[in-house]
Amino acid sequence: MAFRDDGAEKARVLVEALPYIQKFAGKTIVIKYGGHAMVDPLLKESVMLDVLLLHSVGIRPVLVHGGGPEINAMLKKVGKESQFVHGLRVTDAETMEIAAMVLVGKLNTEIVSIINRFGGKAVGLSGKDASLFLAEKKPMRLPNSRGEMEEIDLGYVGEIYQVAPDLIETLLDRGYIPVISPLAGGEDGETYNINADTAAGKVAEALKADKFLLLTDVRGVLRTLGEPESLISTIRREEVTVLMEQGVFSGGMMPKVECAIAALAGGVGSVHIFDGRLPHAILLELFTDGGIGTMFT
Amino acid sequence: MAFRDDGAEKARVLVEALPYIQKFAGKTIVIKYGGHAMVDPLLKESVMLDVLLLHSVGIRPVLVHGGGPEINAMLKKVGKESQFVHGLRVTDAETMEIAAMVLVGKLNTEIVSIINRFGGKAVGLSGKDASLFLAEKKPMRLPNSRGEMEEIDLGYVGEIYQVAPDLIETLLDRGYIPVISPLAGGEDGETYNINADTAAGKVAEALKADKFLLLTDVRGVLRTLGEPESLISTIRREEVTVLMEQGVFSGGMMPKVECAIAALAGGVGSVHIFDGRLPHAILLELFTDGGIGTMFT
Amino acid sequence: MAFRDDGAEKARVLVEALPYIQKFAGKTIVIKYGGHAMVDPLLKESVMLDVLLLHSVGIRPVLVHGGGPEINAMLKKVGKESQFVHGLRVTDAETMEIAAMVLVGKLNTEIVSIINRFGGKAVGLSGKDASLFLAEKKPMRLPNSRGEMEEIDLGYVGEIYQVAPDLIETLLDRGYIPVISPLAGGEDGETYNINADTAAGKVAEALKADKFLLLTDVRGVLRTLGEPESLISTIRREEVTVLMEQGVFSGGMMPKVECAIAALAGGVGSVHIFDGRLPHAILLELFTDGGIGTMFT
Amino acid sequence: MAFRDDGAEKARVLVEALPYIQKFAGKTIVIKYGGHAMVDPLLKESVMLDVLLLHSVGIRPVLVHGGGPEINAMLKKVGKESQFVHGLRVTDAETMEIAAMVLVGKLNTEIVSIINRFGGKAVGLSGKDASLFLAEKKPMRLPNSRGEMEEIDLGYVGEIYQVAPDLIETLLDRGYIPVISPLAGGEDGETYNINADTAAGKVAEALKADKFLLLTDVRGVLRTLGEPESLISTIRREEVTVLMEQGVFSGGMMPKVECAIAALAGGVGSVHIFDGRLPHAILLELFTDGGIGTMFT
Amino acid sequence: MAFRDDGAEKARVLVEALPYIQKFAGKTIVIKYGGHAMVDPLLKESVMLDVLLLHSVGIRPVLVHGGGPEINAMLKKVGKESQFVHGLRVTDAETMEIAAMVLVGKLNTEIVSIINRFGGKAVGLSGKDASLFLAEKKPMRLPNSRGEMEEIDLGYVGEIYQVAPDLIETLLDRGYIPVISPLAGGEDGETYNINADTAAGKVAEALKADKFLLLTDVRGVLRTLGEPESLISTIRREEVTVLMEQGVFSGGMMPKVECAIAALAGGVGSVHIFDGRLPHAILLELFTDGGIGTMFT
Amino acid sequence: MAFRDDGAEKARVLVEALPYIQKFAGKTIVIKYGGHAMVDPLLKESVMLDVLLLHSVGIRPVLVHGGGPEINAMLKKVGKESQFVHGLRVTDAETMEIAAMVLVGKLNTEIVSIINRFGGKAVGLSGKDASLFLAEKKPMRLPNSRGEMEEIDLGYVGEIYQVAPDLIETLLDRGYIPVISPLAGGEDGETYNINADTAAGKVAEALKADKFLLLTDVRGVLRTLGEPESLISTIRREEVTVLMEQGVFSGGMMPKVECAIAALAGGVGSVHIFDGRLPHAILLELFTDGGIGTMFT
Repeated sequence: MAFRDDGAEKARVLVEALPYIQKFAGKTIVIKYGGHAMVDPLLKESVMLDVLLLHSVGIRPVLVHGGGPEINAMLKKVGKESQFVHGLRVTDAETMEIAAMVLVGKLNTEIVSIINRFGGKAVGLSGKDASLFLAEKKPMRLPNSRGEMEEIDLGYVGEIYQVAPDLIETLLDRGYIPVISPLAGGEDGETYNINADTAAGKVAEALKADKFLLLTDVRGVLRTLGEPESLISTIRREEVTVLMEQGVFSGGMMPKVECAIAALAGGVGSVHIFDGRLPHAILLELFTDGGIGTMFT
Repeated sequence: MAFRDDGAEKARVLVEALPYIQKFAGKTIVIKYGGHAMVDPLLKESVMLDVLLLHSVGIRPVLVHGGGPEINAMLKKVGKESQFVHGLRVTDAETMEIAAMVLVGKLNTEIVSIINRFGGKAVGLSGKDASLFLAEKKPMRLPNSRGEMEEIDLGYVGEIYQVAPDLIETLLDRGYIPVISPLAGGEDGETYNINADTAAGKVAEALKADKFLLLTDVRGVLRTLGEPESLISTIRREEVTVLMEQGVFSGGMMPKVECAIAALAGGVGSVHIFDGRLPHAILLELFTDGGIGTMFT
Repeated sequence: MAFRDDGAEKARVLVEALPYIQKFAGKTIVIKYGGHAMVDPLLKESVMLDVLLLHSVGIRPVLVHGGGPEINAMLKKVGKESQFVHGLRVTDAETMEIAAMVLVGKLNTEIVSIINRFGGKAVGLSGKDASLFLAEKKPMRLPNSRGEMEEIDLGYVGEIYQVAPDLIETLLDRGYIPVISPLAGGEDGETYNINADTAAGKVAEALKADKFLLLTDVRGVLRTLGEPESLISTIRREEVTVLMEQGVFSGGMMPKVECAIAALAGGVGSVHIFDGRLPHAILLELFTDGGIGTMFT
Repeated sequence: MAFRDDGAEKARVLVEALPYIQKFAGKTIVIKYGGHAMVDPLLKESVMLDVLLLHSVGIRPVLVHGGGPEINAMLKKVGKESQFVHGLRVTDAETMEIAAMVLVGKLNTEIVSIINRFGGKAVGLSGKDASLFLAEKKPMRLPNSRGEMEEIDLGYVGEIYQVAPDLIETLLDRGYIPVISPLAGGEDGETYNINADTAAGKVAEALKADKFLLLTDVRGVLRTLGEPESLISTIRREEVTVLMEQGVFSGGMMPKVECAIAALAGGVGSVHIFDGRLPHAILLELFTDGGIGTMFT
Repeated sequence: MAFRDDGAEKARVLVEALPYIQKFAGKTIVIKYGGHAMVDPLLKESVMLDVLLLHSVGIRPVLVHGGGPEINAMLKKVGKESQFVHGLRVTDAETMEIAAMVLVGKLNTEIVSIINRFGGKAVGLSGKDASLFLAEKKPMRLPNSRGEMEEIDLGYVGEIYQVAPDLIETLLDRGYIPVISPLAGGEDGETYNINADTAAGKVAEALKADKFLLLTDVRGVLRTLGEPESLISTIRREEVTVLMEQGVFSGGMMPKVECAIAALAGGVGSVHIFDGRLPHAILLELFTDGGIGTMFT
Repeated sequence: MAFRDDGAEKARVLVEALPYIQKFAGKTIVIKYGGHAMVDPLLKESVMLDVLLLHSVGIRPVLVHGGGPEINAMLKKVGKESQFVHGLRVTDAETMEIAAMVLVGKLNTEIVSIINRFGGKAVGLSGKDASLFLAEKKPMRLPNSRGEMEEIDLGYVGEIYQVAPDLIETLLDRGYIPVISPLAGGEDGETYNINADTAAGKVAEALKADKFLLLTDVRGVLRTLGEPESLISTIRREEVTVLMEQGVFSGGMMPKVECAIAALAGGVGSVHIFDGRLPHAILLELFTDGGIGTMFT
């Protein structure tokens, strides 16, 4: 820190952060990392520095990352053509294998690399390690062309029914930062692909996390679509139904809101949906009074 | 166990194993898992059951696996043509990325799956997790066509210069079985490929392991090549030089022997080289008086 | 283990035991040791090897032994004539002293010797150590010759009213195997003789043991006396009354069944009554699907 | 933190501090607090906020405070006239009692108040608590009017000969911030006044502190008196003698330098002499590459 | 101990104390220390020796001391004239400062000195350390000259509304003896003077102490004032109302009784009011069957 | 304690004991219990009360008891005639069995009973428990009738060559009082009788005890036999040789002195030989300045 010149100013900034640091010390915070922040190299570093700063002031951060466009890129590279049923992509065995390789062998390893290069002690996990997640095939029923409900087999797309957080807690207690890929094993020994938001929410529930942060590519929940200044800073759980009826939660936002509600119901302290495209978005959300996105409590 | 019929006989077998169980209880054993035992599905299960049995009788097993032919298969799949320098394959950035995906995302995950399916709690790691391994580019000098020594750049082939075993020890202390892929990070943030035998030996040294087992595709050290009955059961460290001069260690065996000698020098109790192609080879090597392969002490 | 010849077969037996080992790891099992298995020198060793094997795979075994015919032999040796009231032998002070010497000084010490000779760390206790048992005189009323109920004084025959399991738990936590003689102190400072089955049951209750094994000299509960093939493998607690009314529990079996029912009511997971005369009976009962005797759950 | 407007800038400042935070995490830092920073109310708060920030990022701070002009003020208030021997003030029993009251009952309590008001958990101690310091009368010999060396009795001015740091370590381990007054008990039960710099240095030695910070009312060691730009940033222990011969250490600086040298000799990592009159001087000294004062290593 | 001559007799005394020692081992006992026992130098030592003896036989003693006449003496010394409202002395800022200096800087330090001189490890605390006490201004309403209730401002006289006993427990667990001055901080950062009996009672409640001892200058509760032989040894909580109606609790005794009742209601095992003017009064109260004062249970 | 009448006097006695209690707190003291103090019922209680008092003031006592005349009484009772070789009694298998029963089943149990009746938590052990002692046959060579040295077989008389104190330390750490019978197992599985003084000394060595107390039936070491006032209070290790040459150590005293010297050489702090026939002899020896017997340092 080039404190020589503007040192006093910078020291003041540190001291201003003190109340936030004290407030969050010892808290467990689960972060769903995905979207644009996983693509832009500068943002990647920015996120990991935020995570490290949280860790260095006594917070216990857990990362769950998504897959992004990298899986598609790899599928294309190996010439794998996807099958579609009712317009939905099927995750067959080969697709699953490639997804696993990209998630665990490439993306997770990269995140771990960045954190450790900056002096942290990150440990990469998938939901299969120590049977962290147990999953089963996600049931899906859609109306077919004749309007009848039909069971659709999307392959290795799973749904978590059990989380065993002991490994994560062991690692957090010893000062490691867990980084988790959204894969899960089934009792049948198969590997299932899990929606990353859902996986992160399940981890937050199992850990009884104080906060669950969802990095997205939007500002948060807007009262009026397209008007950033209509951002709703805080939504209490009992307000959700009314807002839903008012149509406030647009298409892409709906699953995130459901994920947030489920996490709150599962014992998480608060859920934050905010814009991961801003540099140091995590610090901005946590270390300012109102935050920069939408907090569900 | 269909003990009803031959129960007494089987109970006797269990009781016969007691002295070995008592002898090894609490010991740390590092296992280099590779070769044919990583290819044959039945052998895979046989090895993992052996590991689980060791674990269930109080032994602390650590697995380090190799890459086998799977990396080549994947390279072929994506149409990656390897470059060669002086006849040696160069690990360029793309090759490294694919190797990492196969090792961590496919092979490691598979091993973890099998162990956990049989009731264990395996955790997959690479040498990058918690900076388990630190590596630098492996220097290589070979004579060129003019007979002059020349520095050869093989790309991301690394050499471990530091091991931080705290993560492995944390996991072992809590009853997890670590499964490690032979990747390492450099201080430059790059990822390096590491020879799996060497990586396993380094882990054994850092843990001051009691035993280091090398599963291979040969019987062990044979006094006379091709004569299985000329197997040397035990080699004391001070005998190695003489045996070397006698040419006992054939080409493929030489690096394994060097690896064994390095591990002994680093404080490992004993090193075992034996045939992983036999079902339950690990139990046979540990739970019989003479073992089935060659032990270096 | 002469694995050289039939090694693979033996390894397979070990691996077959794995599911049982995993199932029982960390469980506390109280074993009432008595009957013929305490007389035959080969059976003694067989039982102790079973106990050691349980211990070596992570089970926490506790032994409570009976007195057998040794007390009578010693009484005879010192020329002690027993008194009888209503046909029941009276335990006077001298008899009690001799019983204590035989139980604690001879039988308990012998059991400890065998276990420790095979590599275990057994610790002999009586119910007086650390006030493990507190007892009072067992009340007994029988009809006299005139058919009137009469209080009978059988001397130092006691009934446990309190168990302090902290000493046993301390020893188990540190890897020792407790071996307990069925003596108890009273608040009056006197020593009382306790029925060994009852003492073992009380220990199992106080430890909230997962299993309580009663080694007997019969196969288990037979539906038809004298027909071994009519053995009832499992009896649920709620079935006991009906079976009792059917007269299934013969004279000698009745007190054992009462002991089992009391232990279940006190929080023990399951109680097993089986034939201690078979070599390795404990392993056969625990490590086979149906077991060899009768299990009460 | 009014992050809304200039949030990104402030987040960047926090992240810039990360390498320093990581470097000092878990370190023990003893701070001699005195001079002008103990008089100015704003500076008092500034120092305590710095201490709290250190604590919140995992540093273990220990404060030792001086007495400042408050003792004199109180002596004057109660009309106590000091006696002088050879021009040195004598600490008689009444003076000692008043000094103790001011140090422990007023100054220490005030410091504790400020820290706790900002959310810390400070605990006030004197050297008498748990016999933290043991002292004896400080011997002093000065030439008298006839030029002969004469023993001078300055009363209750003491010299520490033993430090028992267990209490401080207990408090640090549990997250408390110890604040220590420079009093000490003698084996005779008397109370002695101790020079605060010396007391702080002794504490740093006993704790094997990583750093010992001396807040003073000057910039640090200046090569040329009166020229702030001639500040020497770093002095290695072996350079001290030469600098001393060059007369670099002016009158007031000499005892501080001796104190620094003694601490280094006693195992302290480094000693920092810097200007406590600057707001957030501690952060400026620790969290900038060159610091703002003089570091002895 | 001059045991040579009358050793046997003295050994017998020690052994007679055994049942009391066993009964109180591990118990927490809070002692309000004040009155004449804080003035007489011989009594001071006698009390501290009693406290040390309790500590040495495994009891966990906590001292809370009063201010006695020393604060008044100091106020007089500095020429501070007190203001009075409705005949009650007002604690203005200057008075509070002097009270704090006397309590913490003089009296507390003296108590710590005596205990440590006799081989103990006492630690002086005030209610401000680690925010042990949180207080607010004590509300007081009295009728004015016109008989109307009027709010009276007595200045810095406080009332505790929260106790954080973690620091005391930490110290007790590590073998230190806490000595506490009855000061408290407010959320406003101010310091408040607290009635010492009340403070001690609050500490006893927060620690769920087994006993709370109030050293006073009277024998205990007398049925008839002035008749020592009418001492009531034991008062059960439900008897208090009747005794109150009978006018048994004279003026000075009433607040002590209220303090005792509050402590019992707060979970303290028993409260003892007895005469601290007797040498070794604490031992006499605890180590005799009836005690020497009045016990509330 | 009838403190009502002479309470103050008794309190003074307790307080006089404080310096001794503080001096010995946390120390380990091994006590060889034997001789007349094991025969007289009042003395038995007196010794056990002393042991309990030591325990209640934080001392860690370990008892090793002898066999006394009880073994002979029992041998006589069962009509066992002893064989003699060269005038020495032979411990054949039957004698050994009876000795074990009396030591472990009668004497040890009795001691445990008394301690526990007075509120302690004693645990009876023999040297066979957890292989506390390992012994081999004690070699003995004596001149035969022709003056030639001859190997004599005294049967199961053993010599300890290894002590495993972990069990004792576990028990002491948890507040239990170990009471040990002088039996030992051999690697051959046999039981050996051990001299109780030697066994106690070996225990003291293995525990690095601070004190080893030998209760005997004499005053201590007398300079002149038969003159109690010639008692030597303290003997330094280097004085022993001279005293030996002066013939100060009479026949019966010689083995005790050898035992003391061996213990000191093995790291025990001091050894005390004194008269166990005095009531509360242990307290008199420890809690008086000079003690009542002879201390070897």
